[in-house]
Amino acid sequence: MSSLIEPRVLKGFRDYLPAAEMARSTLVDKLEATFRSFGFVPIDTPALEYAEILLGKGGGETDKQVYRFKDNGARDVALRFDLTVPFARFMAEHCDELYLPFRRYHIGKVWRGENTQRGRYREFMQCDFDIVGTDCASADADIVLTIVSAMKALDVGGVRVRINHRALMNRFLAGQGLSEKLVPVLRTVDKQDKIGPEETKSLLAEETGDAIAAKIMEFIRPEATSSATLAKMLALCEKDDEQAAAAGTRLSEVFAIVEACGFGDSVELDPGITRGLDYYTGIVFETNLLAMPEIGAVCSGGRYNELASLYTTRQLPGVGAAVGLDRLLTALETLGKLGAAAPVPFVLIANTGSAPLLRLHGAAVGLRQAGISCEVYPEAKKMPHQYAYAEKKGTRFALLLDEQSLARHVYPLRDLVRRSTTEFSSFDALAGFLKGAIAG
Amino acid sequence: MSSLIEPRVLKGFRDYLPAAEMARSTLVDKLEATFRSFGFVPIDTPALEYAEILLGKGGGETDKQVYRFKDNGARDVALRFDLTVPFARFMAEHCDELYLPFRRYHIGKVWRGENTQRGRYREFMQCDFDIVGTDCASADADIVLTIVSAMKALDVGGVRVRINHRALMNRFLAGQGLSEKLVPVLRTVDKQDKIGPEETKSLLAEETGDAIAAKIMEFIRPEATSSATLAKMLALCEKDDEQAAAAGTRLSEVFAIVEACGFGDSVELDPGITRGLDYYTGIVFETNLLAMPEIGAVCSGGRYNELASLYTTRQLPGVGAAVGLDRLLTALETLGKLGAAAPVPFVLIANTGSAPLLRLHGAAVGLRQAGISCEVYPEAKKMPHQYAYAEKKGTRFALLLDEQSLARHVYPLRDLVRRSTTEFSSFDALAGFLKGAIAG
Repeated sequence: MSSLIEPRVLKGFRDYLPAAEMARSTLVDKLEATFRSFGFVPIDTPALEYAEILLGKGGGETDKQVYRFKDNGARDVALRFDLTVPFARFMAEHCDELYLPFRRYHIGKVWRGENTQRGRYREFMQCDFDIVGTDCASADADIVLTIVSAMKALDVGGVRVRINHRALMNRFLAGQGLSEKLVPVLRTVDKQDKIGPEETKSLLAEETGDAIAAKIMEFIRPEATSSATLAKMLALCEKDDEQAAAAGTRLSEVFAIVEACGFGDSVELDPGITRGLDYYTGIVFETNLLAMPEIGAVCSGGRYNELASLYTTRQLPGVGAAVGLDRLLTALETLGKLGAAAPVPFVLIANTGSAPLLRLHGAAVGLRQAGISCEVYPEAKKMPHQYAYAEKKGTRFALLLDEQSLARHVYPLRDLVRRSTTEFSSFDALAGFLKGAIAG
Repeated sequence: MSSLIEPRVLKGFRDYLPAAEMARSTLVDKLEATFRSFGFVPIDTPALEYAEILLGKGGGETDKQVYRFKDNGARDVALRFDLTVPFARFMAEHCDELYLPFRRYHIGKVWRGENTQRGRYREFMQCDFDIVGTDCASADADIVLTIVSAMKALDVGGVRVRINHRALMNRFLAGQGLSEKLVPVLRTVDKQDKIGPEETKSLLAEETGDAIAAKIMEFIRPEATSSATLAKMLALCEKDDEQAAAAGTRLSEVFAIVEACGFGDSVELDPGITRGLDYYTGIVFETNLLAMPEIGAVCSGGRYNELASLYTTRQLPGVGAAVGLDRLLTALETLGKLGAAAPVPFVLIANTGSAPLLRLHGAAVGLRQAGISCEVYPEAKKMPHQYAYAEKKGTRFALLLDEQSLARHVYPLRDLVRRSTTEFSSFDALAGFLKGAIAG
């Protein structure tokens, strides 16, 4: 006894039991179907890379969150902590084998030694999709259209994609003489969703004084329509600001495409969306579920100028987004949209003890050929035990073949939810009924 | 320039470009469909675990192949090197939340610092499926049936599953007074596929003398039928050997089930199959493709007595197998069975420059609603450039909307393989044609 090893996982790590894993894989399947319908193709990269690749040159003071170590060949290696840095390395390495613009999606695990007290996991799955190698409204719009389409496919109710353009805010602040204070101002604006407009305003006033704070608050307040919001934002920038004008044109083009596609109701221009400070250079967006805004953004992203400048002199502008899989799973579960797929298996072929195993496995082959998942209970345990097993697994029906039913050539099927049994007079009738039950 | 970091992956690691990743995911999807049709459900476990869990207590002299290190909290951790050890820990930890017998599959990456000179990778994907918590013929047979069904679903031509029972060989060798020499004899028998019967016999003779070596060669030689082979094997064991008799009965039951399911042609009893030395205690099997036997076994496994004895006193007998994904991918590619799925995207909506972007994206929405994957080329580059892009991506068709075709309400579709263009007089006609083309 004392020599047993306690079975446990590392703090911040978790097992996926079948129900959770099936929910995750159903979600991922639906997202993949949407990505592919838009022409995105999948890639994968190694979990482990040179630390230099992931952290940059001279990454001496390692981020505490990174799992970094020396491998058995004394190489300085690390587990990937996101999918963006490996994608940048991937594009620099394989650019000549690929076709630009390159649309890829990547769904995979990443690792971060996060503080688990905040409910964070140290191993989690990320899901990114990007269009790299072009800077144009069509690509920007396609990312937004993909987001809205994916959320529709998940059946999570309506969504609100809040869109902004980094250049508009930057040029407005420059016009106010605040270019030096860009970072603290954006950081404060970014907090508005959490702390509310009052506190945002007083924090801004500390930075910029009351008059300019009021102007910033006016700038970031959405108007009744996105076009009214855009008109106001442009009016608050300097009149001859070409960068601001170009950003306005880009936003107009993106909104026009999204509206032409019938998705106009799901998007709005929100000048308060900033999405961090350094990385993004163009359009940015955040997506919330109308039914559950409180879980936060479920899909965010934006446009960046140079994806892979650490590894190549080639210019690789891009636009992309990341899906929050864990938040979406929480939402699907809360909204009761998880269990749509048929349980696995759909039918338990009970082992009554009086039918030969050959017959049970033969019936299973027939059901599988009809597209019905099923399993033979391997031993002739008592029926309540077998029913309990099936119910715990979520199995819907039990086929009760025994000596009598085999002699009478009938197929008794127990509905494990309704707790009633129906007798079918032929295998085809049984299979037909089950196919109908799976379909709906 | 000099400050750029060279983009490269670690030796023994690799990126998956879209074609390779789509091939892998198509293979995995088909395997999963078969597993689920047999009632297997998926799980996942962390990539990183306590080294003690993965390597056992006092794992002082670490296997050189294991990626083991101290994390930022000074925990002794390691990357999983297979899916079996994590599954054992998983079963010990979650037994009370699960239902026995527990049928699970698990597809995930594992890491081993292998010698890459032999063409081995240090990161690769494993695919295991097992039935745990029962020791009976039905479960043994179900693993064999799953293997044959999975290979049928992959359309790789016929397969040969060679089956044996470890107890028969062990009891035969015990009857010859060779219990002490079990390990070297099994190791030699295991080599027969590679070195041939002549050399096997002479190696055995060095161990056991000529007379017994001849007897072993007789024992491991398959007869014309599996039942004849089994009869001979039993005849060569001691007459009153109950373990041998029980093993013979089990094999007969398994073969009877497999034959009743119509899969008899794919299985045979081969007394030369041993599958390693320690782990397996009952039935063992190896699967080869008839079309490509030279790539080695594509699915192997067997029955074991105690899955999780390192972590729990609970008895967890099981039976399972592992699929060789890389070998199957090689086989599928060689046999020309990889490219069955429709390319992503199926249609490029070309950007002729004279049609508004809104119309291009609107057409894309319509095609997607009809189930056709498509993408809008984002910029109005020259047509040869757009065609080259589509061809490199494997896209089959290009929709050529321009000012003229929009004015005439027609839909010109270019077949990028046949290099011919057809004009459709309505969007429905276009969508109908494309749906037919996807279907085959």
